[in-house]
Amino acid sequence: MVSHIGLVGLGKMGNNMRARLRQGGIEVTGYDPRPEVTDVPTLAALVEALPPGRRVVWVMVPAGEPTRGVLAELRTVLTSGDIVVEGGNSHYVEDQERAAELAESGVGYVDVGVSGGVWGLENGYGLMAGGSDDDIAALMPVFDALRPAGPREEGFVHAGPVGAGHFAKMVHNGIEYGLMQSYAEGYELLAAKGLITDVHGTFKAWQRGTVVRSWLLDLMVRALEDDPQLAKLDDWVEDSGEGRWTVDEAIEAAVPLPVISAALFARFASRQEASPAMKAVAALRQQFGGHAVKSAP
Amino acid sequence: MVSHIGLVGLGKMGNNMRARLRQGGIEVTGYDPRPEVTDVPTLAALVEALPPGRRVVWVMVPAGEPTRGVLAELRTVLTSGDIVVEGGNSHYVEDQERAAELAESGVGYVDVGVSGGVWGLENGYGLMAGGSDDDIAALMPVFDALRPAGPREEGFVHAGPVGAGHFAKMVHNGIEYGLMQSYAEGYELLAAKGLITDVHGTFKAWQRGTVVRSWLLDLMVRALEDDPQLAKLDDWVEDSGEGRWTVDEAIEAAVPLPVISAALFARFASRQEASPAMKAVAALRQQFGGHAVKSAP
Amino acid sequence: MVSHIGLVGLGKMGNNMRARLRQGGIEVTGYDPRPEVTDVPTLAALVEALPPGRRVVWVMVPAGEPTRGVLAELRTVLTSGDIVVEGGNSHYVEDQERAAELAESGVGYVDVGVSGGVWGLENGYGLMAGGSDDDIAALMPVFDALRPAGPREEGFVHAGPVGAGHFAKMVHNGIEYGLMQSYAEGYELLAAKGLITDVHGTFKAWQRGTVVRSWLLDLMVRALEDDPQLAKLDDWVEDSGEGRWTVDEAIEAAVPLPVISAALFARFASRQEASPAMKAVAALRQQFGGHAVKSAP
Amino acid sequence: MVSHIGLVGLGKMGNNMRARLRQGGIEVTGYDPRPEVTDVPTLAALVEALPPGRRVVWVMVPAGEPTRGVLAELRTVLTSGDIVVEGGNSHYVEDQERAAELAESGVGYVDVGVSGGVWGLENGYGLMAGGSDDDIAALMPVFDALRPAGPREEGFVHAGPVGAGHFAKMVHNGIEYGLMQSYAEGYELLAAKGLITDVHGTFKAWQRGTVVRSWLLDLMVRALEDDPQLAKLDDWVEDSGEGRWTVDEAIEAAVPLPVISAALFARFASRQEASPAMKAVAALRQQFGGHAVKSAP
Repeated sequence: MVSHIGLVGLGKMGNNMRARLRQGGIEVTGYDPRPEVTDVPTLAALVEALPPGRRVVWVMVPAGEPTRGVLAELRTVLTSGDIVVEGGNSHYVEDQERAAELAESGVGYVDVGVSGGVWGLENGYGLMAGGSDDDIAALMPVFDALRPAGPREEGFVHAGPVGAGHFAKMVHNGIEYGLMQSYAEGYELLAAKGLITDVHGTFKAWQRGTVVRSWLLDLMVRALEDDPQLAKLDDWVEDSGEGRWTVDEAIEAAVPLPVISAALFARFASRQEASPAMKAVAALRQQFGGHAVKSAP
Repeated sequence: MVSHIGLVGLGKMGNNMRARLRQGGIEVTGYDPRPEVTDVPTLAALVEALPPGRRVVWVMVPAGEPTRGVLAELRTVLTSGDIVVEGGNSHYVEDQERAAELAESGVGYVDVGVSGGVWGLENGYGLMAGGSDDDIAALMPVFDALRPAGPREEGFVHAGPVGAGHFAKMVHNGIEYGLMQSYAEGYELLAAKGLITDVHGTFKAWQRGTVVRSWLLDLMVRALEDDPQLAKLDDWVEDSGEGRWTVDEAIEAAVPLPVISAALFARFASRQEASPAMKAVAALRQQFGGHAVKSAP
Repeated sequence: MVSHIGLVGLGKMGNNMRARLRQGGIEVTGYDPRPEVTDVPTLAALVEALPPGRRVVWVMVPAGEPTRGVLAELRTVLTSGDIVVEGGNSHYVEDQERAAELAESGVGYVDVGVSGGVWGLENGYGLMAGGSDDDIAALMPVFDALRPAGPREEGFVHAGPVGAGHFAKMVHNGIEYGLMQSYAEGYELLAAKGLITDVHGTFKAWQRGTVVRSWLLDLMVRALEDDPQLAKLDDWVEDSGEGRWTVDEAIEAAVPLPVISAALFARFASRQEASPAMKAVAALRQQFGGHAVKSAP
Repeated sequence: MVSHIGLVGLGKMGNNMRARLRQGGIEVTGYDPRPEVTDVPTLAALVEALPPGRRVVWVMVPAGEPTRGVLAELRTVLTSGDIVVEGGNSHYVEDQERAAELAESGVGYVDVGVSGGVWGLENGYGLMAGGSDDDIAALMPVFDALRPAGPREEGFVHAGPVGAGHFAKMVHNGIEYGLMQSYAEGYELLAAKGLITDVHGTFKAWQRGTVVRSWLLDLMVRALEDDPQLAKLDDWVEDSGEGRWTVDEAIEAAVPLPVISAALFARFASRQEASPAMKAVAALRQQFGGHAVKSAP
């Protein structure tokens, strides 16, 4: 059973996870290129610091190039029996590819979707893991330290073989897009109607007894507490890759996804200075009806 | 058979219709509050100018209060056997109510959806009529003058009883919303991809042989001819009541309308300075993840 | 302060509410046409049973005709200073109309949106109230008995004047449609991909640490526990009026509602034996391309 | 200038195109594995039959493996200066890859999106081409024979470099999905309301003067002429890859595509025996409210 791991990437997430792992009795050697946060000077030093036998390196760096770079370097220093845990937001197909490469040298691969954001340090992280039964079993002390208190199966799942963890996390994030947009549309409609004199209070009153109560609702209440009209924020919303991947997967599997895709498209639209499509609709209306249009500013 | 009608409302539509009716051999007495365009000084004078027997007054003023006002006044001057034609964009339920009122004095009522915009004078107008067989039969010379050349049934339909004409026109406009948004989304995607070096030319090449050829496509080509990047226009799109009514009707009839409703919502969004809903999504993301957001400008 | 109320309607909701009110120390005289559940034989008897002064009758019967009928009868027996509480799912505009009628005889009106379903007896009900400050203040002991334990403002809100309670509940239900559809789409995608070997376990693992944790998620886990493939259920989903009203209101207010409307339309579609729209698309494809279509069975 | 080409693939499309090319004065040697339609016994024989100099082979076989197979074989028999035209529905990225391979032997590559369906023989085909200026110029006699009569630029476009032809065709098809769904939703709503007594006649009356007139509308009228209630058809609609690719591309480019994606998802849903998502919604409703659900049949 694993009691000491290496952790690569000590950003917002990694740093909190190191703290929670240590609180949970797991020894952690962390590596990050930033000298002020790292425990060891190099990735190689991190691997050397781990106890011999089954060495475990948990990678917690941005998806894409950064993750690929770290995994490529680990491939040169790890040996048969070691395990890499990819805890970032890699696409599940990349997991399958990386796992196959590492398997050539006998190195195991486990992908873990980690949810909980900045609150995870305090609440624990929801974990979805993909990998072999053996590798997962070896890592259970680590997962137990990270996951929330309570029954293990309410905070951790071995969702399937390599890739299943990130696939589950991808769908989790797609659902999250839909949930957030649902609350947001409701907020806009409540606020649009003068009839409701206390929009913040209405959201607040939904927290305990109603069908829509949730953690996101609690956060909505916090946000409205600080800023009841959301006047301090711009209506500009980034999207992570996972919302896009969710819709891509659904299209490949011929699964209708009207709500999650609408939530994704609303984010795209939120970032446009001007919508080329709506310019085209305006142009058509001008052509056929001499309808009122506005000139570009 | 009717050969001389009164026409109330000589705006953009009414004026062109008067011209086309006269070209088609129908005598028209027009009334409009603006002295420079009217043929007679008052609505009462218009009714007096019509030949006795079955007098026909075609109303072509904005839906809502203006139409209601004219119809109320007509109710006081028309008598049994006369026919009112409501050619504006009234809701079909209003038609049914007005028709019932006029029927008390024996005045007939026909509602006509008129499509064709500013091009109708030249091309003829697509007409959808609701009313009794007798009233419609009496009006056929008028409809024949307004509709496009070609087989009557390709430019005119007696769609059903009172209300059916405007119901059909309402659905026509709902479809129109969907068609316009379809071209507009395609335009945005073509223009977003650097690969296409001639977006205007691509639309132009669709005009004759392709599955998507249509009159709206022809208008899109004209619009891009004037302004290949649509740089002169703002992305601000008004919606007439009829798109809204279409979705309302679908909801009442439990008919799924994903495309037409999406086109309607895109117009609502196009007119927002900032989206309260997307501010709410930004607020939620800030709460749970410390994600990047933008402050309001 | 009110300590004894009349409750009209002892169905699934009313019956549970009576029980919770009594547990909370409120005396309740219930009326229902079914002799086996009612406390008094008639509505008039119920009113007589209430202590003189400010009599309170809470109405908990189906929206529409049933509610209108009870309110009309109450109008004949209540007198100045009494209060009617409409706790069903009336449209907020009906509330405003009924309140105006009752105000003519000095009877107060409070509309309350009640959320919590069959779980409310145990957990308490989320309450959103509309009405005057005085009427609401008088009813606070009743609200306190019904709402969940914990801070009052997390289970109750005075959302605004008459109508605001049901408006808030309507939006609550619209949000609920979006939330449910979000989880449902995620479920379908998880289940469609063979990669996930434990779909139920994946939902279960989201219950404690993740961003998507919620009461609806907990219910989803329960449902999958009983029936991991949902094999016992048909894909037929009713919609209450409130989802429709939410979209109608948004359309009137020009608020884009892509997600909530998509969730509503998905329910409409779920109840269709065959989709006329998709027959039309099949017909078009057959016309232009000789594409494969299926004949009706 | 090219006056004699090879044409690989004599299915529904290829066969008609051979006929139209010959009518337009282009000599065509066709190859197809089916002896009853082919002009030559093998692909090699087809290449040999072409006049020396710049040989042109137009490939018109299903996208994916079939097209890849033919292109691989052509790569072994064509030589520098020859041109391959890919007229099927390849993904534009595949075009770019194939073009790069062929360029190694000096063989040119032009991708052409061809629209018009079974009507193209009579009406001509709308053509969107991607490739070098030289290759396109050499092929103009071929394009002129295939495209509809009228100005060249209304039936043909050189949309950009290799890939641009199929990219334009992909977007064309995405638009087509939206247009078809728009008419289909309108059809369903018209038919749902008893008020309209002549749904077929209503569509027919839109053909000449209205804003929604189009070729697809004409086809809708034909379909309703044969079968006014569409009673002979099942509501089952296939989707080609191009609708999916359109949405994939939009997601990559962060272009909101609410209407085209909704049209795609409606097709996915049309092919489901039962919707797992709607089963999940039914399950949730059963859990929280004891709402009526239907058991699976």
